[in-house]
Amino acid sequence: MKLSKLVGDRFKERPANCLIDSHALMVRGGYIKNVANGIYSQFPPMKRISQKIENIIRDEMDKLDGQEVMFPVVMPGSLWDESGRYDSVGSELLRFNDRTGSKMVLGMTHEEASVQLVREYANSYAKYPFMIYQIQTKFRDEARPRAGLIRVREFTMKDAYSFHTSQEDLEEYYQKCYDAYNRIFARCGIPQVVVVASDSGMMGGSISHEYMLLTPVGEDSIAICEECGYSANVEAAPSIIENDESGELQELTKVSTPSVESIEDLCDFLKVEAKNTAKAVVYQKNADDSFVVAFIRGDLDINETKLTNLVGEDIHPAVISDDDVLTAGFIGPVGINENVTVYVDSSLKDIKSLVTGANERDFHYTGFNVERDLGKVEYVDVAKITDGGICPHCHKPMIKIHRGIEVGNIFQLGTKYSKAMKLEYLDENGKRQYPIMGCYGIGVGRMAASICEVSHDDYGPIWPITIAPWQVHLCCLKSNDENCKSVADNIYETLQNSGVEVIYDDRKARPGAMFADADLLGVPVRVIVSPRNLEEGVVEIVTRDKAIQKKVSTDDVLTEVKNIIDELTTEIYKNVK
Amino acid sequence: MKLSKLVGDRFKERPANCLIDSHALMVRGGYIKNVANGIYSQFPPMKRISQKIENIIRDEMDKLDGQEVMFPVVMPGSLWDESGRYDSVGSELLRFNDRTGSKMVLGMTHEEASVQLVREYANSYAKYPFMIYQIQTKFRDEARPRAGLIRVREFTMKDAYSFHTSQEDLEEYYQKCYDAYNRIFARCGIPQVVVVASDSGMMGGSISHEYMLLTPVGEDSIAICEECGYSANVEAAPSIIENDESGELQELTKVSTPSVESIEDLCDFLKVEAKNTAKAVVYQKNADDSFVVAFIRGDLDINETKLTNLVGEDIHPAVISDDDVLTAGFIGPVGINENVTVYVDSSLKDIKSLVTGANERDFHYTGFNVERDLGKVEYVDVAKITDGGICPHCHKPMIKIHRGIEVGNIFQLGTKYSKAMKLEYLDENGKRQYPIMGCYGIGVGRMAASICEVSHDDYGPIWPITIAPWQVHLCCLKSNDENCKSVADNIYETLQNSGVEVIYDDRKARPGAMFADADLLGVPVRVIVSPRNLEEGVVEIVTRDKAIQKKVSTDDVLTEVKNIIDELTTEIYKNVK
Repeated sequence: MKLSKLVGDRFKERPANCLIDSHALMVRGGYIKNVANGIYSQFPPMKRISQKIENIIRDEMDKLDGQEVMFPVVMPGSLWDESGRYDSVGSELLRFNDRTGSKMVLGMTHEEASVQLVREYANSYAKYPFMIYQIQTKFRDEARPRAGLIRVREFTMKDAYSFHTSQEDLEEYYQKCYDAYNRIFARCGIPQVVVVASDSGMMGGSISHEYMLLTPVGEDSIAICEECGYSANVEAAPSIIENDESGELQELTKVSTPSVESIEDLCDFLKVEAKNTAKAVVYQKNADDSFVVAFIRGDLDINETKLTNLVGEDIHPAVISDDDVLTAGFIGPVGINENVTVYVDSSLKDIKSLVTGANERDFHYTGFNVERDLGKVEYVDVAKITDGGICPHCHKPMIKIHRGIEVGNIFQLGTKYSKAMKLEYLDENGKRQYPIMGCYGIGVGRMAASICEVSHDDYGPIWPITIAPWQVHLCCLKSNDENCKSVADNIYETLQNSGVEVIYDDRKARPGAMFADADLLGVPVRVIVSPRNLEEGVVEIVTRDKAIQKKVSTDDVLTEVKNIIDELTTEIYKNVK
Repeated sequence: MKLSKLVGDRFKERPANCLIDSHALMVRGGYIKNVANGIYSQFPPMKRISQKIENIIRDEMDKLDGQEVMFPVVMPGSLWDESGRYDSVGSELLRFNDRTGSKMVLGMTHEEASVQLVREYANSYAKYPFMIYQIQTKFRDEARPRAGLIRVREFTMKDAYSFHTSQEDLEEYYQKCYDAYNRIFARCGIPQVVVVASDSGMMGGSISHEYMLLTPVGEDSIAICEECGYSANVEAAPSIIENDESGELQELTKVSTPSVESIEDLCDFLKVEAKNTAKAVVYQKNADDSFVVAFIRGDLDINETKLTNLVGEDIHPAVISDDDVLTAGFIGPVGINENVTVYVDSSLKDIKSLVTGANERDFHYTGFNVERDLGKVEYVDVAKITDGGICPHCHKPMIKIHRGIEVGNIFQLGTKYSKAMKLEYLDENGKRQYPIMGCYGIGVGRMAASICEVSHDDYGPIWPITIAPWQVHLCCLKSNDENCKSVADNIYETLQNSGVEVIYDDRKARPGAMFADADLLGVPVRVIVSPRNLEEGVVEIVTRDKAIQKKVSTDDVLTEVKNIIDELTTEIYKNVK
């Protein structure tokens, strides 16, 4: 491919709307073009990167005996009615009517379609286990697309579905998939991806893991124990609080706290620490707007995911008005209206004496003791794990909170979909059973953007050789010099004939402009042909990360280039287990 | 791949709702599964066929310097507003609103997206010509999906868009694409595809061609001249009628024809031939329901596409009520209401004397002569070409009408999209110009179904080696015979290690059931291992079409199989020009 013919512009200025580097570089480098909010077209370099990532994924799926299939992008709403998700999923599921008025949805995931495909086939235990997967366009109507290809509405994703006759068999396969995912990330040049326990959310099922690429620009928070290596999405991590049991029991006393509505003001006013208060955090159920109040130690925050799972339905932060049964700013567990659903977080356990609201305007209680004043309480865990918090695994206070991008996820789905959609098989004894499912996803575009995010410099991406749009970027520094041009042309042909993927810049451009373009295309191996070097019969070979810089005889270019490609590839495969 | 693990069912009964063979066989063979009207999932064999077809297309597009890109499936309505097609295209364009209420469409073709992608890039003549293409899911909300993958709502399509600075350059590139398309069909095993001139329809532009696979089940009608080879879609073929100038002028006479409303009744009643009548065919404009009447020789039919193009807007067959300005059954050109748009087809030229309506209930005219009674008339061509009609090219009456499936199309779009969407470049003289575009489409699934339609027997598809899901189907006729199983296992391994694609049936099934499955999978080369043949140290090799049937020593299987694969491939490439 000649660079002069490559469709797409490269430019220097960072676009104002790009908040993270990968987004800016992929726009500046002619990889993607915005078509609508969270919807992009891909220029040829991005398409090439996508295909390479897809082929690595495909290879690993095939090694797991995965069979590639294709599900529709547009599905009938009735199919999602079968699983109940037509109603239960929020507005990220795009629903519309076709010309006949039938309910349709755009596929954001394909559990329903996978069950529908095998519902007749998978009728006997002898056909299990099996796994089917597709690599296909999906649409998720995100409220807030952001960060280029990191969070979009339309994306290409590999989604796989496995079917089993026992939990053990699922777990065994799940582990293989777990390992295959690690290989995929390593082969794509990001072996540093960490696996974390996650919340299953709308997918159902119990056990699930996310693959996180740690970077400060990530939108997920991950708790990692610096002692034992335990890791979990903050959404899923248990919070363990050990309170000092010292302190004294005090009498429950109502005190006047005029206009003191926040925990900060309360601590100032009564001269107590936040961790000696019981803070009320108020939500409402989406369905009927009834109130849900969680009491938690004043210095901690609520983990909304854990609370939602506990409530068992969608909730949102409450809006409390004057005629509601709650007195905003003064809510407390003692004498709270009985129509309110109340949870007490275990962070309040073992504290002798707390300050909390008195459910009366301008009054709080001091001396509140949970068990004395409320009787037997079922503590729940709805607190967010904190930096320096206690590790749920080794129990040392060594939790560090990191930011990460979720580049993949795997779920043990159980029988949620097979039961709901009546996928049954006959077991060895002729008895009807529901198969147990797993599902496994990786977003292709997000992966590319994530790699760029952790592998770039100020001038452009530094693509790993396994997914780079080309392997070699050939620059002819003086294309109006006959010898220079002819040597470069010759190298171009030689490399191409040997199956090396080359992008060839033979434009009449200044070297600075050429190198800027080469940096933006991020191709791992650069071959530079210049009249000055040719005087000595050599050309320059440099890797994009500058780790290798050498001059080699024009006769040795092919050999050297192939060696370097091999070296870079070997380097990456060192991390593939 | 072991057949026992292949996801998908194969069965014998022809499903009741399958009207054509390819549809029935692709359902019976476990290739596709219906998800909704005109929407299918693909089982692994179909996915494999699709990938092979896609790779052939990709290869030919790359040879034309095409650059693969990716456009979105979901596009903003505003993009289609730019070209005017948001409003002008009918309800096959699926329109909906996203969660913010923005107008969106599902891509059925990507002229708008292609122009949007290159609008900044293609700003100088030096960047031309170039071609970009994608292979991607499309959605077209067909009113009547039918015939399995032949006419669906969701489909995978390769669509390419070329950009040029002159009509000559477009034409040169168009010719290359024209040839590449012929190569694609030949490589996929259907060299018999014919190219026909076509109507450009909603795409705009003037010159366009369709690639038609002739088969009685096709839904298009194609006129082919048996003398000179001229071919065109009936929608686009000029109709040439040469009337005998003999006959006599007669006086225009109003005659009573009580309740005689059809041409047949009229001919009976007045004892004239249909070709001596001027029939009125009535339409209404979609926009305002105003009447359009085309007068045509009574034995001919209207070509609605040509009439629509002439009117310049969408029309539909008229519904005439008693208080309309037209008298249904008695409409004629003499004295017709002046608010009606009237066309006179050239089939009425040179006929001395015609019978036609008198625009009065129960009356017709005899002795009508177009030029004497209407004055100067601008004849138009809105007649459908007929079997036995005159060839527009060699003027011999040798036209035959065939049925065909459109498997590809190419269009010269002109500047319709570049002008509407303000894609401009500076020419050599620094002057702003609009580039001239071409576009080129092939549907992948329809191609597979078409191949099946013309290449099958009663038992299943006969896939050409270049697109077959596997190259070899290995049957172990007695898997509980130790020697038989071990020889078959060995062959399986040997073939796989040599890069041959094998599907291996090692089930404990009756030979009849095995062969029925093999027939449905349509794999070109079959290797059969049976205890009886092994007694003589041989296995049987048969091609799916039975052209080759031989016994070969177990030692020679690999060599023989490879030879046959080469032979079959060479056979196909003979037709690639």
